[in-house]
Amino acid sequence: MANSINDLNWSPREKAAARKAFELALNREKESTIQQAKDKAAKIKDEDDLWKLESWLTHRRKEIDSTYDYRYSVLIFVFANLMRSGWLSEDELQGINPEKIEKIRFIVAM
Amino acid sequence: MANSINDLNWSPREKAAARKAFELALNREKESTIQQAKDKAAKIKDEDDLWKLESWLTHRRKEIDSTYDYRYSVLIFVFANLMRSGWLSEDELQGINPEKIEKIRFIVAM
Repeated sequence: MANSINDLNWSPREKAAARKAFELALNREKESTIQQAKDKAAKIKDEDDLWKLESWLTHRRKEIDSTYDYRYSVLIFVFANLMRSGWLSEDELQGINPEKIEKIRFIVAM
Repeated sequence: MANSINDLNWSPREKAAARKAFELALNREKESTIQQAKDKAAKIKDEDDLWKLESWLTHRRKEIDSTYDYRYSVLIFVFANLMRSGWLSEDELQGINPEKIEKIRFIVAM
């Protein structure tokens, strides 16, 4: 019987590849957020812009926290989400079993 | 009988002078906070610095909100506080009755 999507088995090789892809996307998103924060801050004209930067940062922090969930039970969804939002490309998932890649691709296309 | 410090009478002329001094300090503190935020953002190197900027902004917003309390019952304390923290000088309270200035000076020196 096929494993449920939340109950896939990850080999040590796949775990290493998954961790690498996960960190790659996370670093990209962090770097992009830092650059956006710098741009927004440089453009601040008044108090309103200042507190908009604060709430944008809070929003980004919560979003990043909730997106980057490294539990094997949800990793297929995390990768699909990262591919859909452009932080990761399929070829960066190299080392992960084709069966899982197929599931990720399916979720991305959903 | 002398009025209690929370129960002083403010003439229209004093109210106008108080509002002007209040806004002067508030604008100075806002401008300074904006400049500091720009400087901090420009110096961000990593994620840690990014979320430090967020929490610093939250702290500043709450601090400014609680400092600038324009109720006549507390205004003497607000002005004393602003003088103590350097956002206002005594000569900028011109137009406010000498009796109140004396009380403010007393609180500043406390």
